[in-house]
Amino acid sequence: MPGSPEPGSPSRPLELDDDRILPTEPTVRAIAREIFAAVRDLPLISMHGHVEASVLAHDEPFPDPAQLLVVPDHYVTRMLVSQGARLEDLGVPRRDGGPVERDGRTIWRLFCSGWHLFRGTPSRFWLEQELHDVFGVRVQPSAETADAIYDQILDCIGRPDFRPRALFDSFGLEILATTDAPASALDDHALIAASGWGGVVVPTFRPDALVHLARPTWKQDVEELGAVAGRDVSGYAGFLDALRQRREHFVRLGARATDHGHLTADTTPLERVDAERIYAAALSGAVTPAEAEAFAAHMLFEMARMSRDDGLVMQIHPGVLRNHDPAVHERFGPDKGFDIPQPVDFVRGLRPMLTAFGTDPGFRCVVFTVDETTYSRELAPLAGAYPAMRLGVPWWFLDSPLAMRRFREAVTETAGFYNTAGFVDDTRAFASIPARHDVARRVDSGFLAQLVAEGQLRIDEAIETAVDLTVTIPREAYAPRGA
Amino acid sequence: MPGSPEPGSPSRPLELDDDRILPTEPTVRAIAREIFAAVRDLPLISMHGHVEASVLAHDEPFPDPAQLLVVPDHYVTRMLVSQGARLEDLGVPRRDGGPVERDGRTIWRLFCSGWHLFRGTPSRFWLEQELHDVFGVRVQPSAETADAIYDQILDCIGRPDFRPRALFDSFGLEILATTDAPASALDDHALIAASGWGGVVVPTFRPDALVHLARPTWKQDVEELGAVAGRDVSGYAGFLDALRQRREHFVRLGARATDHGHLTADTTPLERVDAERIYAAALSGAVTPAEAEAFAAHMLFEMARMSRDDGLVMQIHPGVLRNHDPAVHERFGPDKGFDIPQPVDFVRGLRPMLTAFGTDPGFRCVVFTVDETTYSRELAPLAGAYPAMRLGVPWWFLDSPLAMRRFREAVTETAGFYNTAGFVDDTRAFASIPARHDVARRVDSGFLAQLVAEGQLRIDEAIETAVDLTVTIPREAYAPRGA
Amino acid sequence: MPGSPEPGSPSRPLELDDDRILPTEPTVRAIAREIFAAVRDLPLISMHGHVEASVLAHDEPFPDPAQLLVVPDHYVTRMLVSQGARLEDLGVPRRDGGPVERDGRTIWRLFCSGWHLFRGTPSRFWLEQELHDVFGVRVQPSAETADAIYDQILDCIGRPDFRPRALFDSFGLEILATTDAPASALDDHALIAASGWGGVVVPTFRPDALVHLARPTWKQDVEELGAVAGRDVSGYAGFLDALRQRREHFVRLGARATDHGHLTADTTPLERVDAERIYAAALSGAVTPAEAEAFAAHMLFEMARMSRDDGLVMQIHPGVLRNHDPAVHERFGPDKGFDIPQPVDFVRGLRPMLTAFGTDPGFRCVVFTVDETTYSRELAPLAGAYPAMRLGVPWWFLDSPLAMRRFREAVTETAGFYNTAGFVDDTRAFASIPARHDVARRVDSGFLAQLVAEGQLRIDEAIETAVDLTVTIPREAYAPRGA
Repeated sequence: MPGSPEPGSPSRPLELDDDRILPTEPTVRAIAREIFAAVRDLPLISMHGHVEASVLAHDEPFPDPAQLLVVPDHYVTRMLVSQGARLEDLGVPRRDGGPVERDGRTIWRLFCSGWHLFRGTPSRFWLEQELHDVFGVRVQPSAETADAIYDQILDCIGRPDFRPRALFDSFGLEILATTDAPASALDDHALIAASGWGGVVVPTFRPDALVHLARPTWKQDVEELGAVAGRDVSGYAGFLDALRQRREHFVRLGARATDHGHLTADTTPLERVDAERIYAAALSGAVTPAEAEAFAAHMLFEMARMSRDDGLVMQIHPGVLRNHDPAVHERFGPDKGFDIPQPVDFVRGLRPMLTAFGTDPGFRCVVFTVDETTYSRELAPLAGAYPAMRLGVPWWFLDSPLAMRRFREAVTETAGFYNTAGFVDDTRAFASIPARHDVARRVDSGFLAQLVAEGQLRIDEAIETAVDLTVTIPREAYAPRGA
Repeated sequence: MPGSPEPGSPSRPLELDDDRILPTEPTVRAIAREIFAAVRDLPLISMHGHVEASVLAHDEPFPDPAQLLVVPDHYVTRMLVSQGARLEDLGVPRRDGGPVERDGRTIWRLFCSGWHLFRGTPSRFWLEQELHDVFGVRVQPSAETADAIYDQILDCIGRPDFRPRALFDSFGLEILATTDAPASALDDHALIAASGWGGVVVPTFRPDALVHLARPTWKQDVEELGAVAGRDVSGYAGFLDALRQRREHFVRLGARATDHGHLTADTTPLERVDAERIYAAALSGAVTPAEAEAFAAHMLFEMARMSRDDGLVMQIHPGVLRNHDPAVHERFGPDKGFDIPQPVDFVRGLRPMLTAFGTDPGFRCVVFTVDETTYSRELAPLAGAYPAMRLGVPWWFLDSPLAMRRFREAVTETAGFYNTAGFVDDTRAFASIPARHDVARRVDSGFLAQLVAEGQLRIDEAIETAVDLTVTIPREAYAPRGA
Repeated sequence: MPGSPEPGSPSRPLELDDDRILPTEPTVRAIAREIFAAVRDLPLISMHGHVEASVLAHDEPFPDPAQLLVVPDHYVTRMLVSQGARLEDLGVPRRDGGPVERDGRTIWRLFCSGWHLFRGTPSRFWLEQELHDVFGVRVQPSAETADAIYDQILDCIGRPDFRPRALFDSFGLEILATTDAPASALDDHALIAASGWGGVVVPTFRPDALVHLARPTWKQDVEELGAVAGRDVSGYAGFLDALRQRREHFVRLGARATDHGHLTADTTPLERVDAERIYAAALSGAVTPAEAEAFAAHMLFEMARMSRDDGLVMQIHPGVLRNHDPAVHERFGPDKGFDIPQPVDFVRGLRPMLTAFGTDPGFRCVVFTVDETTYSRELAPLAGAYPAMRLGVPWWFLDSPLAMRRFREAVTETAGFYNTAGFVDDTRAFASIPARHDVARRVDSGFLAQLVAEGQLRIDEAIETAVDLTVTIPREAYAPRGA
């Protein structure tokens, strides 16, 4: 790959600067250190992620290093692909079961030889901290060091203290929310609850597959929903009933929130009769794209209404065009790095929902974006007015030091700190969770330190605010609502 | 409210760092201090605000602290509302005259208990400086300190040197522009002029209510315009004549500018016959939304033409969707914090106006935005080409340290300093005017200091530029045009 | 002009700070110096510019200082125009041959008296470095110093070591790409190649005039193309053939790339029969605006296909509304500073091209923008996924220290360094080329130094990356593709 270090160049040590990401000006850094010290070791509150509950329910050892750190992480694989690697060579399974690389060590070597591509990215930061802190690696990945690192990690993950539950405990996770389909029985969550292990793992209700009528599996997913919920879903009323039933089930198993990924932020409700008609059309396979879009928007509104009624916090993250390259989607499925953000109109999109429920004490929504242009223009003014709304912190592409800093810089002056929600790590990579929270705490400490150094905030207020951002605010933001 | 300091925690002192907001790196800060020293005490030129002329015409003592600092300031009330307070409890009058909190001390306590919500916001900065410099408060607001601060301010505002005119003089205001409806007789301005008091208070011509045909009061406003102007406004020609007559009246009373708040930046003129037809339709109550939009755009063009003819500087600030929550509007009226910015197309929107008048030495427009995405993409390139156009500095949501810094960073490299206009404080809160100008001077000094420290500008040039930004440029930008 | 220094004020020295634009915090600056030292004197790779090959083919002395530094530089003239100067007074030729200022010294004086307008702009930086390093000027331009500077430059450009080829060599240019119409015979390039002088000057294939059917000269340009290519262009197939023939000619003369300026990023291909029909309609003068737009998008797709086949790198820079003021265009022609960026939809626009060729090893595109909102939202995610795509670095309005810094800050965390392309100077001003590359190297060094100071990158990696950005990456990005 272009720009790689010369083959045979000496290994570079992997060291972690204790002040990493903190501001560089010495006075500000000293203030930031003081703030960061107050939050560094606070519990991790992980309310939005993609770790499977089964990992913690069964507590099996992780497979090989490539399967742990490379293959399932689309941040990592897409970067290697962007420089000419093939997903097959990175071990990403093909939908047709065709041949892909299965040797962990071979995949790991390919990843290590592309290590320089991650310079300046959060993947570099997370992986470095993970390799260093979790697996004790002290040399940077490269073609030369690949095998030694592979062996070292392989040795770790065979040991009991590297099992998922042991890591969960050592990470200091106060709570971990998973992401689950409405039809999920949540057996893994039940298993964890019944296990006597003290870890708190809660489900999150994600109904996307059921509200996007144009998805090829929609009818099948709805039928599965009906079966699991014990409701007749041949009509729209039964569909809503089934959703309500599943939400109740999620609430019983500790769910705090729902999660909604839509192409737009539209929340315009339909007339009941139109919703019924479109639902029926979808069941008979005759729905138009415009009807499907209108129904998705309508269902966001309905989900808000249900949230107002059952207290689940509603997480909305619109504006990503999924599977930009249909060939990649066709061959490897979704979530392979070819999801591209697009502009979102939150102002008109959220208006129906916010005017209906935005001042209702029973309703809480957390709104995420990957379109930074909306921070100061739309989201901060909305969150700075409607009591039901909180701003989701930077996420996905923006879950990185500079982007997090830009978020605080763009929204704080309009919405303050207390209209934002806690950090969400949104990860599939279980072992990266501490590093991800660590970045957020460092960035927030640095931003607060700057305010102190500029005479805009007192140090005791800054420390109080940092603690609030780390634990008080996310606990409150995701607390069950309502009666 | 979440995150509040524990009840009973000790009071925090309120101190002002003399270097507040200046850059933190010591070398840059020293340069910034030198620049700031040259502009810190220059006169305040306040060409765009919402203080009522009556305040200065009658020079009555201010009412209680809550009525002075909380109730009319939608920056303050919306932040408290966003965290669960009710506008009623903040004393904001209901349109139906229904009951709201009337006890200033009770409102003040609610405000003080939410003081932490303003951390990192410009409201915090302004209020802190105002409390400290104007009222001599030396303790931060909190539930514990609320009463003492209330009493201290109450004591001040009863004294002669806290009357509006006394404050005007002590603030160093060179000129204060108000915002006025075209039908206003401007009696308060005349009263001030005749009073012998030396303060310069000039009106600003704001015809929004007359050009947005869909507003429910439009017909009534037009009839009032006709009556005041002594013109028959039953036809479009008379309407234009009446507007011209009122502009002349404003000019006679010292007006320098007009002010235009539109949803879009569209300035497309209509054919005369279409303007006449739509005007007639509006009078008969039969105008369509599309016609109303087209007429508003047309009237911006017509206002530009009149500005070219009578020399009033034209201020345009498009792109805010007013009254996002109709329930709040219905209950409390406009300007209650539920106005949300939206994207604006300046490139095509301003094109008709700029191609008609943009190179005419008799025309001057100052264009404001709350959509930061347009700074480097649209506004700086336009202002860096058309001689008639100046860039309005950050305003409303963006009237804050970081947003002002982003403005200079985004526009200077394309438009330079001399295509921007002076700072506008846009405030309803009279006592906050010095603090608001102070922020702008600090931010500009810091930005210039950075250029000096980076070897891009000499210190003598930086000082000259800072002085120009503070007084030379706004005096020139708002100087009467034309013959 | 407003804000000018007082007439008669003493001359200001023109000095260059050796650390200019580097970060100001001393620790970070020291790191930045070390990085910058490694790239400062590397060869200049200038793959995208507007210097005419004839300048180097004929190697004539430059005309007077105004013709060298003011008249052809629309960055300079538009800034003076924005503050009231007339293009006529700046010597810009009128299309009708009408009178304009012809005296170089008079033009130069006007420019010098407006020197303060360039404070904080890259023009100031470039001109200062150019005046200092190339022409030995040691005093800042002003009304007082104008004549002395004029004489000093005039003296220089009469000397052999200030001839274009001598400057080319002393600048350290490794390669210079020009911009050329497809019908160009490229005689000047051939002349240079045959001259025995060692400078590498390559053409760039820019077919805009041939794909935008609505341009008044389109038919004439197509006929010229046909004549030069020896192809019958009366049908669409012959048109494509002629383009292919010319691309081959360009490749033979060393071309590395094509260059495409479009209003949008649309690359949707037409059905063959529709392309043929629209082409025929255009030839008969009966094309609609919608057809012309669709054809332009289609031709981007076709150009991508040809690039895949012949290995020319495809440069795309959409989103500029040209000639915003038609009166300026009518009087002075294109490229006079009245070109204004507008929003671009890269996500949907580039999708047809990227899904067709984005993973093809034979295809390479470099995508530029002047809409910064697309950096983190669209361009970095796209370039961080598709192997064929590289991000063009900041360009035109954004070719400046702060904008370059924003680019690295916005894209690196998602796309890394290795998915960007090398610096492009995009200049008509030959003597400014070293200064422009110098800025980019300083900004990149500063950005990398910040990562080092924050513990995100090792210094040896930062130096390696800086060298890669300066020479390795642009050499690879613009290397001929394909078999």
